[in-house]
Amino acid sequence: MAKKRPRIEDRVEQRTQEIGQNLLEKLEHRFPSIFHGRWWENHLLNRAMDDEAIKVQMFRFVDVLPMLNDHTSIARHLEEYFQEVRERLPLAARLGLDLSTSNSVLSRALAWNARTNATRMARRFIAGESIHEVSQSVQKLRRSGFAFTLDLLGESVISDAEADRYQQIYMDLIVGMSDRVARWSEVDTIDRDQNGALPRVNVSIKLSALDSHFSAIDPVGTTQRVAARLRPILRLAQEHHAFVHFDMEQHDYKTLTLNIFQQILMEDEFRDFADIGIVVQAYLQNAAADLKSLLAWTKKRKTPITVRLVKGAYWDYETIISEYRGWPCPVYQRKWQSDESFEQQARFLMKNHQWLRPALGSHNLRSLAHGLAWAEEYGVPFEAIEIQMLYGMSDEEARLFSEMGYRVRIYTPFGKLIPGMAYLVRRLLENTSNDSFLRQNLTDNRRPEYLLMKPSDHAIEESPVEPGVNAGFSNEPPTDFSIDENRSAMQQALEDVQSEFGREYPLVIGGKSSDSRSSLVSRNPSNTSQVVGRVASASSDQAADAVMEAERAFPQWAATEAGRRADYLELMAAEIRTRRFELAAWIISEVGKPWADADAEVAEAVDFCMYYAQEMRRLDTPQECCLKGEDNSYSYRPRGVAVVIAPWNFPLAILTGMTAAAMVTGNTVVMKPAEQSSIVASKFMEIIQNAGVPDGVVNLVSGIGEDIGPDLVGSPDVDLVCFTGSQAVGLEINRLAADTDDRQVNVRRVIAEMGGKNAIIVDDDADLDEAVPGIIHSAFGYAGQKCSACSRVIVLNSVYDQFLKRLIEATKSLKLGPANDCGTQIGPVIDDEARDRLLAAVDRIDSDHDGTLALATDPGELSDQGSFVGPQIVADAKPDSPIAQQELFGPVLPVIRARNLDDAFALANDTRFALTGGVYSRSPATLKRARNEFQVGNLYLNREITGAMVQRHPFGGYRMSGIGSKAGGPDYLLQFLVPVNITENTMRSGFAPATEE
Amino acid sequence: MAKKRPRIEDRVEQRTQEIGQNLLEKLEHRFPSIFHGRWWENHLLNRAMDDEAIKVQMFRFVDVLPMLNDHTSIARHLEEYFQEVRERLPLAARLGLDLSTSNSVLSRALAWNARTNATRMARRFIAGESIHEVSQSVQKLRRSGFAFTLDLLGESVISDAEADRYQQIYMDLIVGMSDRVARWSEVDTIDRDQNGALPRVNVSIKLSALDSHFSAIDPVGTTQRVAARLRPILRLAQEHHAFVHFDMEQHDYKTLTLNIFQQILMEDEFRDFADIGIVVQAYLQNAAADLKSLLAWTKKRKTPITVRLVKGAYWDYETIISEYRGWPCPVYQRKWQSDESFEQQARFLMKNHQWLRPALGSHNLRSLAHGLAWAEEYGVPFEAIEIQMLYGMSDEEARLFSEMGYRVRIYTPFGKLIPGMAYLVRRLLENTSNDSFLRQNLTDNRRPEYLLMKPSDHAIEESPVEPGVNAGFSNEPPTDFSIDENRSAMQQALEDVQSEFGREYPLVIGGKSSDSRSSLVSRNPSNTSQVVGRVASASSDQAADAVMEAERAFPQWAATEAGRRADYLELMAAEIRTRRFELAAWIISEVGKPWADADAEVAEAVDFCMYYAQEMRRLDTPQECCLKGEDNSYSYRPRGVAVVIAPWNFPLAILTGMTAAAMVTGNTVVMKPAEQSSIVASKFMEIIQNAGVPDGVVNLVSGIGEDIGPDLVGSPDVDLVCFTGSQAVGLEINRLAADTDDRQVNVRRVIAEMGGKNAIIVDDDADLDEAVPGIIHSAFGYAGQKCSACSRVIVLNSVYDQFLKRLIEATKSLKLGPANDCGTQIGPVIDDEARDRLLAAVDRIDSDHDGTLALATDPGELSDQGSFVGPQIVADAKPDSPIAQQELFGPVLPVIRARNLDDAFALANDTRFALTGGVYSRSPATLKRARNEFQVGNLYLNREITGAMVQRHPFGGYRMSGIGSKAGGPDYLLQFLVPVNITENTMRSGFAPATEE
Repeated sequence: MAKKRPRIEDRVEQRTQEIGQNLLEKLEHRFPSIFHGRWWENHLLNRAMDDEAIKVQMFRFVDVLPMLNDHTSIARHLEEYFQEVRERLPLAARLGLDLSTSNSVLSRALAWNARTNATRMARRFIAGESIHEVSQSVQKLRRSGFAFTLDLLGESVISDAEADRYQQIYMDLIVGMSDRVARWSEVDTIDRDQNGALPRVNVSIKLSALDSHFSAIDPVGTTQRVAARLRPILRLAQEHHAFVHFDMEQHDYKTLTLNIFQQILMEDEFRDFADIGIVVQAYLQNAAADLKSLLAWTKKRKTPITVRLVKGAYWDYETIISEYRGWPCPVYQRKWQSDESFEQQARFLMKNHQWLRPALGSHNLRSLAHGLAWAEEYGVPFEAIEIQMLYGMSDEEARLFSEMGYRVRIYTPFGKLIPGMAYLVRRLLENTSNDSFLRQNLTDNRRPEYLLMKPSDHAIEESPVEPGVNAGFSNEPPTDFSIDENRSAMQQALEDVQSEFGREYPLVIGGKSSDSRSSLVSRNPSNTSQVVGRVASASSDQAADAVMEAERAFPQWAATEAGRRADYLELMAAEIRTRRFELAAWIISEVGKPWADADAEVAEAVDFCMYYAQEMRRLDTPQECCLKGEDNSYSYRPRGVAVVIAPWNFPLAILTGMTAAAMVTGNTVVMKPAEQSSIVASKFMEIIQNAGVPDGVVNLVSGIGEDIGPDLVGSPDVDLVCFTGSQAVGLEINRLAADTDDRQVNVRRVIAEMGGKNAIIVDDDADLDEAVPGIIHSAFGYAGQKCSACSRVIVLNSVYDQFLKRLIEATKSLKLGPANDCGTQIGPVIDDEARDRLLAAVDRIDSDHDGTLALATDPGELSDQGSFVGPQIVADAKPDSPIAQQELFGPVLPVIRARNLDDAFALANDTRFALTGGVYSRSPATLKRARNEFQVGNLYLNREITGAMVQRHPFGGYRMSGIGSKAGGPDYLLQFLVPVNITENTMRSGFAPATEE
Repeated sequence: MAKKRPRIEDRVEQRTQEIGQNLLEKLEHRFPSIFHGRWWENHLLNRAMDDEAIKVQMFRFVDVLPMLNDHTSIARHLEEYFQEVRERLPLAARLGLDLSTSNSVLSRALAWNARTNATRMARRFIAGESIHEVSQSVQKLRRSGFAFTLDLLGESVISDAEADRYQQIYMDLIVGMSDRVARWSEVDTIDRDQNGALPRVNVSIKLSALDSHFSAIDPVGTTQRVAARLRPILRLAQEHHAFVHFDMEQHDYKTLTLNIFQQILMEDEFRDFADIGIVVQAYLQNAAADLKSLLAWTKKRKTPITVRLVKGAYWDYETIISEYRGWPCPVYQRKWQSDESFEQQARFLMKNHQWLRPALGSHNLRSLAHGLAWAEEYGVPFEAIEIQMLYGMSDEEARLFSEMGYRVRIYTPFGKLIPGMAYLVRRLLENTSNDSFLRQNLTDNRRPEYLLMKPSDHAIEESPVEPGVNAGFSNEPPTDFSIDENRSAMQQALEDVQSEFGREYPLVIGGKSSDSRSSLVSRNPSNTSQVVGRVASASSDQAADAVMEAERAFPQWAATEAGRRADYLELMAAEIRTRRFELAAWIISEVGKPWADADAEVAEAVDFCMYYAQEMRRLDTPQECCLKGEDNSYSYRPRGVAVVIAPWNFPLAILTGMTAAAMVTGNTVVMKPAEQSSIVASKFMEIIQNAGVPDGVVNLVSGIGEDIGPDLVGSPDVDLVCFTGSQAVGLEINRLAADTDDRQVNVRRVIAEMGGKNAIIVDDDADLDEAVPGIIHSAFGYAGQKCSACSRVIVLNSVYDQFLKRLIEATKSLKLGPANDCGTQIGPVIDDEARDRLLAAVDRIDSDHDGTLALATDPGELSDQGSFVGPQIVADAKPDSPIAQQELFGPVLPVIRARNLDDAFALANDTRFALTGGVYSRSPATLKRARNEFQVGNLYLNREITGAMVQRHPFGGYRMSGIGSKAGGPDYLLQFLVPVNITENTMRSGFAPATEE
C-alpha cells in the first residue's frame, strides 16, 4: 500500500539527520570552555587513552586507592603501578610526579596529590556521601532544570546484614528526600508530563543488593528473599509518591530480575503502581525479545511502566565471563550493533509509549536523535519522552536537551566516595573507550556526518569479529542454571535417580560382572536414611583377578594405536555429556555435593577425557632428531597395569581423570573407588563399557581400601599406582610400592595427589568485596571438602578486623541444606564419621592455644536428617595450632593475623603441604612476591583457590601434597609413559637417503 | 713479461674446448647403440633416478640381495622394499613385477628375475670371481687395447685372518697373472711408455684391508702391522715386474695411508721401486697440499711414482660422518668445486710429470680434456699420460681415447659377485647421481657448451651451501686423533697427570675443603701398583654437614635466575673443554678407559652442561594460557637438596650430567662419587669451583657407599636422589627414599639409572660387515663396562655359524692392553674385585646348562700388571642361564641361537631389564617390528648400541633398568622440578586489560 511513499525508515533517518545536525550545531558553540581547568580530562585522560598499559595502570591505581590509608602506602602503590610504564608517561613531568624519588617529603606530596585528584574526580561523578549532600546536589540539578534518579553506591552485598542496610538506606532516602523535594518549587519540564505530576523523588535500585546470595540457580529462594526486602520499599514509595526504577546488572541476573520485577508488581498491592521503571540494555542480543515480553506483561497488568533504554555498562565483564565459561556471548560484539539495537528498541518504545514509557539513557547524539525522530513519527507527546544522562558526564549535552524543553533526568550516584571508586573506574572507562561518542566528538574532532552515520554503515569499517579461538581443546561449559529448562532437567534427574535408589552394583573384572560375599552400603549424606545403593565389595582374590585381567589385556591395548585409544576417551566424553544431569544427580545424591559443584564436576570429567585424548595425540608424534645417515625418534610407550585409587570428593572427575590418563597412554587399569562413592564409580564403569572399551582394559574393584589396597599396590604385576586421597594413605602407598620384590619386572611408579592446608593471604589493599566471597567460596564450597579448599586465611593486621567482621557476617548468611536443594550453599559432609571427627576437632579448640571460635554454625534440625556441619570460623588462630596445621577437610576456617607481609608469607609457607594458595592484593609488588615466594602448586591471585579447570589450571601440589605432575596439565601423561629413543643408521654401503620415508 | 700474450689459463681453456668438442663429436656417433638391450639402464635406472624414494629402495634391495639365500626371502624383501613406493613405480608393470601377488609360483619367478638381473648387473661391473675368470676378462680388455688394474672386492677386513687372506690373494694374483700376461702379445699403447716397458700386471690395494684394526689413533701400531703384510706383496711385485697402486679410501684413513706409503717406500729395498702409484682425491679440500708434499717426498726419494687423480667416491660418507661428528667437512660441498680442484691438481701433475706420473681417473670429458690441454702446455709426452676408467662404465668413451692413441687403463674389480654388491651399489649411485657426467650427457641431452663449461661457471647456477644447521645445542665434537697434535696432546696429558699421581684430595663441604680420618686409595687399573691418588672418605657426620650446607645454600640458589644458573653450566663446559686432554688422562688413569672412549666421555660432560643449560632456558619460559580477564602461567620450581650418587664407569660424564641437571634447575647438590673414581670427581669439583658456583651449591662427599649412602638417602632434608649404578643399590635407594618420616617436608624423588642385559638381534639378512664390528664395539668397548653394553647376541639360525665364526675371528684380533696405550682396544676392568668376579662367572660356565665357552682370551702377562680380563664368548648360550640373564659388567658375551624372528624377539624381551637393544637387519618389516616390539629404552637399528649422544640419543631404560626419564633428553630436567601454575584474575571492577604486562 505504502510502496510509493518514502519508506518509514528513510523518513525517520532523514529526520534523524536533521535533529542530529541541529543538536551538533548547537553543541559546537558550547564545548571548548567546558573542560577548562579540569586537568584530568585534558591531560591525564587524553594521554592515558592512547596507551593501553598506562590506562590499565591508572585505572588499577584508582581502583585500589580507597583501601590505601596512609601516604606511604599511596606512594608505594603509585610507584609500583607506574614504574613499568614510566618511560611511556609523557605527563609525569607535567604533573610534577617524579616517580623515581623515594624522598619521603616528596612522596607524601605525591600521595596527597594523587588522592586529592582522585577524590576530586570522584566528586565529579558521585553526588554526595550523605542524604544532606545528595539533596544539595540534586537541588542544584533541579535549578538547572534537571530531574534526577538516585543510585546508592557501595560495597557489594555479601551478607544479610548488608542487604538489610541497603534496604534501610533506600527507605530512609525515600522518606528523607520526599520531605525536602516537597518544599522545592515546581519545575515544569521535569515535574509534569502529559498525564500530570511526576514523582520528584526517583530512586534506582539494584535487586542483587537486596539479597546476600542473589542467584539464578535458586530463583524461588532468591525471589522470596528479595521480595521480602523490596515490598517495604515499594510501599514507602507509593506512600511518598516516589518513583522506583529497577536497575539492570550483569546478564546472569537479568532473567531473575525481570521475573522478580514482574512477579512483585503483579501482586495486588502494587498492581496499580505506575511510578515504576525497569532497564533494558540494548547491547543484549535478546533485548528486543525482552521488550516484547515486557509489553505483553504490562498489557496484562494494565498499568504502564517506564523503560529506561541504555546501551549497557558491563560489556567487558559479559564478554570475559561468557568466554571464560564457554557460553554464548549475550552481548553484541561490535559497538555499531549495540547502537543499532538501541535504535530498534527505541522505535519499539515510541510505538508502544502508552504502555512502555520511553526513557532514553544515552549520551550518543545519533542514538538520541534517532529515538526522537521515531517519537515524532509515532506522535509521541513531547512530555512523554524522558532523556537520561549520567551525573558528571557531558553536562552541556544535558543542558542542551533541557533547554530544548526535553525532560532530562540525571542518573545520580551517591554514597561514600571511597567505596564508590569502582563506579568511578567504570565511568572513566566509558569516557576513554575508543568507541565512546564523547571521545569521538571532543577529542578526535570527527566530522558531523561521521558522528551521525547510521550504525550499520560502521560495519564495513570493522574487521570481522574473530569467532573465538577454538583450536584444540576447550573446556566443557558449565550448565547455565538461569535457563529454566536446565533447572528442570536437573530436578527431573534427581527424581529419576532417586527412583533407582537401593539398586545393587557388581564388580567388573575382565568385562564380566562379578558379585561378592560382602557389599558396601552407600547412603545419601543429605539424608542418611536413604540407601543410594549397594555395591559389591571385592575380596583379595577378586583384586588379584582384576590385576590379572588387566595384565592379560595389556599387550593388545598397548598395541592399539594411540589415536584409537584417544577416540575411546572422546566416546566416553560424549556419553558423559549426554548423561550430564543424571551423573550430576548421582553425585549430589551419593556424596552430598550441591548442584553447581556437581555440574562442574561432570564438566571436568568431560574435560579430562577430551584433554588427555588431545594430549595423547600430541605425545604420539615422535620427536625426531635426524641427521643425514641417522634417524632418531623419541617416543613413548605405556608402562603396564595401573591401579587407580580414587577419592570420594570428586567421585566422577578424579576417577575419570586418572583412569582416562592411564587408558589413553596404553596402560590397563584396575579402578578402586572410594567406599563412599562406589555407585558413581559404577556409573563411570558403565560409561567405559558403553564406549566399547575392550574387556579387561578397565576393571572395577570396589571395596574396602584397608583390605584390598595393599593387595593391589603390592602386586608384582602392577606397574603404576595412581592415587588421590589423604597424605597418610598416599605415603603408605609410596612406601609399599617402592618395596620391590623379585617377581617384579617394573619398578612401580606412584602418582599421588595428597592433601593441603591451603592458605589465602589478604593484603591490606585487598578488595574485600572480592576477597570475602572468594574466601567463603574457597573455604566452605562443598563444605570444605575439596583438596584445594582454603583452610587458613592470613590477614594483614590493618585490615584484619574489617575483614573478619565481613567474613563472619557473610558466612552467617550462607544457606545450609540438603545438596539436592538448588538453593543450598553448604551441603552435608560426606558421612557421620566425618561429621563426628570435625565436630570433635572444633570441640578441642582452646582459646589459649588454638584461637577463638568466632562463628560456630549449628545446622539445627538438619542434623537429624543428614551429616551436617555448619561453617566454623576460628579467629586469631595460632599458626602452629592443630587447627591451623592439620588438614581437617571440612568447613572449618582458621583466620590468622599477620604483622606484615613478611610474616604473612612466612605463615603461609609454614606447612608441610604445598597444594593451593591465594593472595588478595592490589599491590603489584605483593603479587610479584607471591609468584616467587608462595610455596604452592597452584597459586591464585585475586580469585578463589578452588575450581581449577583442566588445561587452564593444571592441578597438583608438591612437598607432602603430591608426588608427580599436575592433573590436566602438559606433563601429566608423561608419568604414565616411558620414553623410548630409536636410532636407525640409514647409511648403507656409504650411501644414505636424503629423507627417510 | 708475458703481459701481452694471452694468459696461460686462457690458452689452456681454449685448448680444452677444442679437445672437448672433438671428443664429444666423436662420441655422439657412438652412443645410441650402446645401451641397447640393457634393460636396467634404459628402464629401471632412468625411472629410479627421478624418484628419490624409489632409488633408495632399489639400492637397499640390491644391497641386501647377497644375504638372501632363497626365493621366499628375496620375494619377501622385494615386497617389503617396494610396497611403500608401489604406486609410484611406473616400471612395475613393464617389468612384470606384480608385487601384490603373493602367489608362490609368481613370487618365485619374481625373486628369480630380481636375482638374475642383479647378478647380470654385477657381472657388468665385476670382472670375475676367480683368477681364471679375471684373466679372461682382462685378456678381452687387452684385445680391445685397454690396460687394467685389478682391485679385490670383498667383505671388510675385521680380523687378522681376513687380513692374511687379503694379502694372500694379492700375492697369488701377482704370481698367477704374471705367468699369464707374459704369454700375451704386446700391445704398444699400453705396454710401453716413453721410458720403456710397463708392467702388464697392475694391482690396486687398500691398505685398510691389510689390518684388522686400521686406525689413526694408533699410527705406529697400524703402520707396523700393515707394513708387515705389505712388504711380501711389494717384494713379489718387484720380482714379477708388477705394478702396485695404493688406493685411497675414506678421509679418516688418508694421512695414515700416505704415511705408510711414504715410510715403506723409503725403505732401502723399495726405494728404487718405480712401478708404484697412489691416489689423490680431488674432492678433498687439502688435495693440493697433499700433492705438494707428495712431490717433495718423491724428489727426496729420487724415484718417480704414479699418481692417479680421481674425484673421489666417498662423498656421501664423508659428508655424513663429518656432520655427525661435528668436524669440518673434508670434501668440497659442490660438484663444481671438486671438478675445479681436479683441474688444478691435473695441472700440477702435468707440470711435475717427471716425478708424479699422471693418471687421470675420470669419465668427465671436460675434466679429461682440460688435463690433456695442460699436458700439451707443459709438453708432457703423449705416452706419459694415462687415462683410467672403471670397468663396465662408459666403454665407448674408453674406446674413443684408446683409438686416439691414449693409454687407457681399466680399473677392474674382481671377487665374489655377492659380496661385491656393495661396490655395485656405489657404482650405480655414481651413474644415477644428478651430477654425473654420464647421466647429463646421455640422458638429459645437455648441449656441448654446457658439458664443457668451466667448473666455476656452474657456481652461479647453484643455491649457496647451507652453513649446517647450527641453531641451539650441538654436540661437542670428538677429538680427531688422526691429527698429530691431538695425539701428542693426549700423550703429554697422560705424562702430566702421571706426575701428579699420589696426591691427596679433600672433601668439599660448603665451599670448604675438609679432611677425614680415613681415605680411599685410588689405583690405576691398568697398572695397579700405581696409586693415582688418595681421597678423603666422608664420615656420617660429614655427610650430614654436606646436606646441611646444601640446604643452607638452597634458597638463594633457587632464587637465582635460571639463565644465570645456565651461565654457570656454560662456564663449567668451557673449562672442561679447556682441560679436555687432562681430564681424559685422569679418566684413562683412574678407571682404565681407552683413549677414544675417555675423550668421548669428556665431550659428553661438555654436552650435558651445554644441553641442560639450553633446556633450562627453554623451561624457564612459562607456558601461558591466557584468557581475557585471567592470566595463567605454568612454570617450574626446584625441589631442594639433591643427592647425586654416581658410578665409576663414566666418572666424569655421568657425575657431570646428574649434577649439572640438579644445579641448573635450582637444586643444591651433595655429590657422592663412586669410590673407584673419586679423583675424577675431585677434578670435577675443582671445575665447579673455578666456574664461581656459590659455596654450598655443590658439595663433594667422597666415601664408602655402604657407609654414607643410607645417611644421605635417608636424610629428612634431602628432596631428590639421583643415582646411576647397579640395580640392587638403585632399588634399595628407592625403598629407603620412600620411607617418609615426620621431619620431611618433601616426598623424596628418586631418579635411578640401573643396569641392563642388553641384546642385539642379528637377522638373517644382516650386513655382517657391519654387525660383527658393531657388536664387538658394543660388547667389548671399555671391557663391557658400559651400562649400555651388549651382553647378549641373539642370532638367527641360518646365519648363526657364519656370524659366530667371524665374531670369534674378529674378537681374537682385538688388542688388549693398558688404557694409556693409544693402540689398546680393550683395557682393564675397573679393579681386581671385578676381575675376580668376572673370571669366577666364566669359570662357572657349564656346557650342559649355560653354553660353550667358544673364546676365552687370556690376557697373559698383562695379568701381572693390572686388572685384565680378556673377551669371552659363550656360544649357544642358554637363554635362561645366569650368563644370559645376569648383568656381568665385563667383556663376556653370550651368543644365543634363535629359531626365527619370533623367537629372537621373545628371547630379547625375556629379561627384567629394558635398557638398550639393537637389531641388525635389512628387512624393513623386521626393523618396523623391532620399533614396536623390542622392549628397551634405547633401541639401535643397524649400528652399535653404545655411545649415546646427548640430545640425539636421550639415554635411559625402563622396567628394572631405570626409574625416571632419559638423561640428555627433553623430559630429563622436569624430574628435578615441580610444576607450579599461577592464575591471576586480572579483572577489576568489571574491567580487564587486553594484555597483561
